[in-house]
Parts: sequence; C-alpha cells; structure tokens
Amino acid sequence: MQVSVIGSGAENEGRAEEVGRLLAEAGATVVTGGLASVMAAAARGAKSAGGTTIGVLPGHTREGVNEWIDHAVVTGVGHARNLAVVASGEAVIAVGGSWGTLAEIAFARVLGRPVVILEPGWEIEGDGVERASTPAEAVELALRPARELGEP
Amino acid sequence: MQVSVIGSGAENEGRAEEVGRLLAEAGATVVTGGLASVMAAAARGAKSAGGTTIGVLPGHTREGVNEWIDHAVVTGVGHARNLAVVASGEAVIAVGGSWGTLAEIAFARVLGRPVVILEPGWEIEGDGVERASTPAEAVELALRPARELGEP
Amino acid sequence: MQVSVIGSGAENEGRAEEVGRLLAEAGATVVTGGLASVMAAAARGAKSAGGTTIGVLPGHTREGVNEWIDHAVVTGVGHARNLAVVASGEAVIAVGGSWGTLAEIAFARVLGRPVVILEPGWEIEGDGVERASTPAEAVELALRPARELGEP
Amino acid sequence: MQVSVIGSGAENEGRAEEVGRLLAEAGATVVTGGLASVMAAAARGAKSAGGTTIGVLPGHTREGVNEWIDHAVVTGVGHARNLAVVASGEAVIAVGGSWGTLAEIAFARVLGRPVVILEPGWEIEGDGVERASTPAEAVELALRPARELGEP
Repeated sequence: MQVSVIGSGAENEGRAEEVGRLLAEAGATVVTGGLASVMAAAARGAKSAGGTTIGVLPGHTREGVNEWIDHAVVTGVGHARNLAVVASGEAVIAVGGSWGTLAEIAFARVLGRPVVILEPGWEIEGDGVERASTPAEAVELALRPARELGEP
Repeated sequence: MQVSVIGSGAENEGRAEEVGRLLAEAGATVVTGGLASVMAAAARGAKSAGGTTIGVLPGHTREGVNEWIDHAVVTGVGHARNLAVVASGEAVIAVGGSWGTLAEIAFARVLGRPVVILEPGWEIEGDGVERASTPAEAVELALRPARELGEP
Repeated sequence: MQVSVIGSGAENEGRAEEVGRLLAEAGATVVTGGLASVMAAAARGAKSAGGTTIGVLPGHTREGVNEWIDHAVVTGVGHARNLAVVASGEAVIAVGGSWGTLAEIAFARVLGRPVVILEPGWEIEGDGVERASTPAEAVELALRPARELGEP
Repeated sequence: MQVSVIGSGAENEGRAEEVGRLLAEAGATVVTGGLASVMAAAARGAKSAGGTTIGVLPGHTREGVNEWIDHAVVTGVGHARNLAVVASGEAVIAVGGSWGTLAEIAFARVLGRPVVILEPGWEIEGDGVERASTPAEAVELALRPARELGEP
C-alpha cells in the first residue's frame, strides 16, 4: 500500500517524521513531493523504520531531493506534480502546509482519495476528509480502508 | 487583461453569467475551463457583452467545449489543466464550486494570483483571498489591481 | 480553425513568418508556444495579415511572451506544454526545430493531428506526416482537411 | 541508478525483457510507463533478476499497471507522463515503439538524458543518441556514463 504524506512548515516536521515512521512500521510505502521540510521529515521517519519512500519531484532533475528518498520520479511538470503526489497514494495524510498542500488536499478529493488532516491544519470540511489529533490516529485512519480489505 | 472565472453548480450559473458580462464590459478577456455549468455561464455572459473568451480544456480534443468559447486550448493534461486555468488569469473569481475549484483557488495563491470568492463559496482564509457579495463587487475587486496601474 | 506552428532556428524565421501570414489570410488562428524565434515569427506574420494568435506558454507567468500574441495561456507545466501546443491545433506545421519540435511532431501524431514538415526539417516518416517545399504548400496541406469540409 | 526503458510492439518484448534483466543484474532500477507490451516485458525481465521497477502511469488510478511494477506513480497527466518517464532515468533505452516512444526520445534529449536505440528502432540522429545491436550492448551504453563515475 502507498500513502502520500503532504504538508510544510518547520513546526510540523516532528509530527511528519512520526507519521512516516508509523506508516513504515505498518508496511506502507511513503510517497511525498520529495523535497525539504515535511516531505523530508516523513521520508526520514519511514527510513528510520526500514520502510520504502518515493519522491515525486516537480523539476527536470533530481535537484533538491532529500536524502531519504529511495525512488525519485522526476515529473518535469512543476506544480502539476502535486496531482501526481496525491494520485499515487491510496490515502493522503496532510501535516500542516500552505496553499500547495491545499491544492493537494483538493486534488485528492477530486480523485476520490481519502484525506486525513493532522491537527492543526487546513480547516476544510467535506466528504472524505477526516481529522486526527495525533500521528498515530492519522495513520490509523489512513490505513483503515486497506485494513478492512485485509491489506497490506 | 485576462481574468479566470472558476466554479461549478447549477445554482451559481446566473451569477457566473453576470460576472462574465461585467468582465467583458470592463474590457477583460474571460478565461475558464471551457466546459459546462459555471464555465459555460461565464463565457455566455462575456459573449453577451461582446467580449472575448478562452477555454482551457482538460482532454485531448475539443470535446465538451461550450459554444461561447472563442479560443480553445486543448491541454491534454487532465486535472492538471486547473493549474493552467488560474495561471492564465491576472486575477481569479470563484463562483461556487467543489473540490476542483478549491484546487484552482489554492494553485492561484501558489502562483500569487489574487482570488475573489463570490458568496457563498469555499470558506478559505488567507493572504490574497477576498470575498464579494455580488458579481459587481467581485469584478470590481478582481480588476482593481489592473485599474490602479491604468489598465485595461 | 486553429493551426499550430512549431519549430525553432533563426534561419527559419522568414519562412515561419510567411506561414503565419498565409494562415491568417486563410482565416485560421495561429497557435504557437508563445516565445521567441519561429514562435514569434509565425505570430508576427499572422498579425501582419490581421489574424489572431494564441501563445501556449510553459512557465508560471507571461514571461518571455512575444509581442504578437493576442491571447496567452500560461500552463505552468514546463515542457509538457508542448502537448498542449499541438493538441490545440487541428493541424500542425513544423518549421525547422530541434528536439522540442520533434516531441511536438510525435505528440501531434499520438493525438491524430496531421503534421506538415516544411523543408528542410526533421526527417520523420509515418502516417499523417507530409512534407512541403514552400510556406504556401505547407499552409495548403494543413488547411486541406478543413477545406474539404467547407471550413473555415 | 535509474534507467528508463521505453517502446512498444509485441515483436520487441523479448528484447525488452532481456534489457530489463540485464539492467537489474547491473544494479539499476528500471523505470517504465507501467502499462503493457514493452513496458511490461522490461519490468518482468528486471524482476526475474531480482531488480526493482517503477511504473509512471498516465491515468488517475493504477488501472492497467502490469504485475511486475514494484512502485507505481500515478501522474494523472495523460501523455504528458511521457516527460516524467524519461526525466526519471539517468539514461533511456528505446526498444521499438511508435509515436509515443518518439516523443519520449525527443523529450529525453530536451532534458539532456542520453538515449540508446536498440535496433531496429526510430531512425533518429542527433547528439546524445546512440544505437545498439543487442540488449547487452544497449545496457552497456546506457550504463557507461555511470560506470565511468564509479556507479552504481
């Protein structure tokens, strides 16, 4: 199972690392935008637990990729890669974040991917969007649909 | 000047048509996603006032383009065309809308385009996002930066 | 009718300008990538004959747009905008050009758009690709399908 | 190191499988478009040698992904994903293929990625494009730049 972790903000990196670690412990591959801040923290957390990480980069090269990315996909489509980041997850966890994260939350819902917003975060209500108080709760909510199906 | 009009919902078409008409009367070209609903209404309004309309389509062909589009750009990139819709406006007016509209609002702000949300609409707060009660107010707010510069 | 003109190379600008002029005289709107060189020359030619021009730009802003573009679509998707350039034409005329032009020729054929290569140009053979010796012949070949249908 | 394998055509699947196998044996990760034909054969070959495979898909879901893909990136940008396929490789090997493959070869060169065309294949000449007679030679040429640097 692949879960996308999105967001930004230095104050959110600790929680993002915890999200990444818990996802990896549960056997899920962590997909991010592959760059710094929350993207790097989530990947670092996943690697600390022996997990696998995918970075979906915006530019034409691997420039800026963080060191915890196992597999980098270089999209070349700039901010449109935000669509690819969330489309590549069976669920999406948002940890803080600004406008780019909001675009990803919205695209995730356009595509029917369930979204979990870890508090505090964008105040968005709508079908398919849940809120979590802790990294553990966020991961639990993100993995629940797969677990009900007997995965991963 | 080009202004992007985004949104969806049958209940919003009357106001979108008014927005399109007022933009055209002010000399602005109306950019939309080129399909039905609010996109068609805004273009229809613009044409009723002799304006010019651009439709930025998601598919590989002109399929689904509304009849009020003067110039269709066929992007072939699916939902990533939402980025092109808002990037092509110097300002963006949102009239209702669901998740796709929210992705457009967010991308507009990633790119620094001012956004005007016509009430009722997405409850998003942030720098560069204003709210308007009427189509006239929405158009006034969208054109204000250009007017201060002596355009269009 | 919209026809896309693609290519690059200073030595090809004279012929590209002629292609743009002839397309405009025939009533076709000229679509290009919106930047310099052949793109600018084709648009300049179209404007010299009172035609209409659309520029499909790669970046996040209008930066680099040539002065003969009437309507700029800012895609934000980098080189992936090459797909949008050719998808937006009912036919494509290539005037010189390097690898980016070859990508456009190939995408045009993926999408079923007829391609006319003005000599000299990429030596590509395949269904739907014709070669022309002069700008007039290139325009004639590009417009023929529409003319057989009674357009534009 | 990541190497992209592109192409199509049932008659090329045997050679594509061999290319994938040899890349995996050399320690390279195989990137493809993730779907059927040559894409599936290359991935199957890589997995037969215990390698790792990445599939860069065009749609909004994993629909059509072949069973030998370890990590699927769902781009949602249609044919524009061809740009991502070649951008994600440090080198590109083309095995047969039609217009979509030609677009990939061209984009690879736009981005400066070395391309190896396995005979028979597109008759394209240009800087950075080499031809190989056998899968072993294609892999050797693709990996040479990395080997000169002491990788992988």
